[in-house]
Amino acid sequence: MTKNKKVNAAILIIGNEILSGRTQDTNTNTIALWLNSIGVRLQEVRVIPDIEKTIIDTVNILRKKYDYVFSTGGIGPTHDDITAQSISKALNLAYEIHKEAFKILETYYKQGEFNEGRQKMVWMPKNANLILNPSSGAPGFNIENVFCLPGVPSILKSMLGGLKNKIIGGEPVLSHTISLRTVESEIASSLTDVQNKNKEVEIGSYPFFQAGKLGVSIVIRSEDKYKIDLCSSEILKFVKEKKIEVVDR
Amino acid sequence: MTKNKKVNAAILIIGNEILSGRTQDTNTNTIALWLNSIGVRLQEVRVIPDIEKTIIDTVNILRKKYDYVFSTGGIGPTHDDITAQSISKALNLAYEIHKEAFKILETYYKQGEFNEGRQKMVWMPKNANLILNPSSGAPGFNIENVFCLPGVPSILKSMLGGLKNKIIGGEPVLSHTISLRTVESEIASSLTDVQNKNKEVEIGSYPFFQAGKLGVSIVIRSEDKYKIDLCSSEILKFVKEKKIEVVDR
Repeated sequence: MTKNKKVNAAILIIGNEILSGRTQDTNTNTIALWLNSIGVRLQEVRVIPDIEKTIIDTVNILRKKYDYVFSTGGIGPTHDDITAQSISKALNLAYEIHKEAFKILETYYKQGEFNEGRQKMVWMPKNANLILNPSSGAPGFNIENVFCLPGVPSILKSMLGGLKNKIIGGEPVLSHTISLRTVESEIASSLTDVQNKNKEVEIGSYPFFQAGKLGVSIVIRSEDKYKIDLCSSEILKFVKEKKIEVVDR
Repeated sequence: MTKNKKVNAAILIIGNEILSGRTQDTNTNTIALWLNSIGVRLQEVRVIPDIEKTIIDTVNILRKKYDYVFSTGGIGPTHDDITAQSISKALNLAYEIHKEAFKILETYYKQGEFNEGRQKMVWMPKNANLILNPSSGAPGFNIENVFCLPGVPSILKSMLGGLKNKIIGGEPVLSHTISLRTVESEIASSLTDVQNKNKEVEIGSYPFFQAGKLGVSIVIRSEDKYKIDLCSSEILKFVKEKKIEVVDR
């Protein structure tokens, strides 16, 4: 894979607790920022319930459509943790004891504590590669282009570092933000002109409230710093003409 | 629609800013909690970029699969706000000025301030119903079973109240949480037995860290309070036998 290729990914959040509103998902944001930093474009996120058929079908759609798929959740010891068995079925692979994972957990727990529940966590699709877990022992796994991570945010975060050499990113997307003391409608037409003249650059406009005042952040994204700078100067030109206050640039 | 029917929904988050990691989505959680409170089961969430074809394709999948679809984002005045036009195309409807929305914004803004950018916000699919916006004037809209809301969390929140009579929920899902001072693997096997004996009840197990201590919350969900109580007492029975401390129930 050359550095010029655009590399993309999807995230699959497996969890009834997100869908019921019990838990605020933060794993998407953690993974999104990390992917962005290594030159992988996150193109889609799906949140689905802990239902085997739904997991199988969704994994099979996403792994064919994107370079990488990252799942979160469902790899613990309880009955509602069905990610590993569902992914085994999705990929038509045996669901079996991973010997290396077994050794890791056998060593991690005190004698007699590596019980039935914990042993469930070493069952994985045949030939899975482990994603080591520096926080709590039980590893995640990678099979083909699918990477299965836990749902607990602090544990997930601690495991991303171990993926560094397994994910090959492309050209990183650079971004520049210009924050203005204005409202979107004041700049909409001029910003459309800039976007039309710079079609390869992604320009986003995001209202914000800060210390009781309204503002707009314009985010310019591209792999090409020159194109970002060009866009930026075109934006600052109309901003000056309209006498809009620049809060940050 | 009778009260016994199960009513479901999907959320479609339209926003490059979520995928790039710039913004932490909180709208999913807001809508999920609200849906839960009115007896609608959130079955899927998708986050997609601001790309017309992707919006059209995804809306068409979701609106056929679920009773309701709620989109967030992309209904502002700037060039990257393409939700209304994309949904018009998805539903094969004309994209045109909504007269009532026009009147609302004409009154909302001071004379001369209802400019071109702001006028973009009154273009909607033909025959759309407005979702009134008590925070900032510009309404969302509903067409068939699709409800389009803004991306700014505080504005979105203020608009949900106005949807009360437009969404007909089913039997609400009740839930009961038992929090224990234990780890998942200690209770995994007993919890599996309880789940197997109570197949119609959804039992979830979620580790937590609180004041430096590990714990597990068991969440029991069902429309039937009797079934929840039965499950709950079976869980508390094995908890007592195992001498596990109950933190909250």
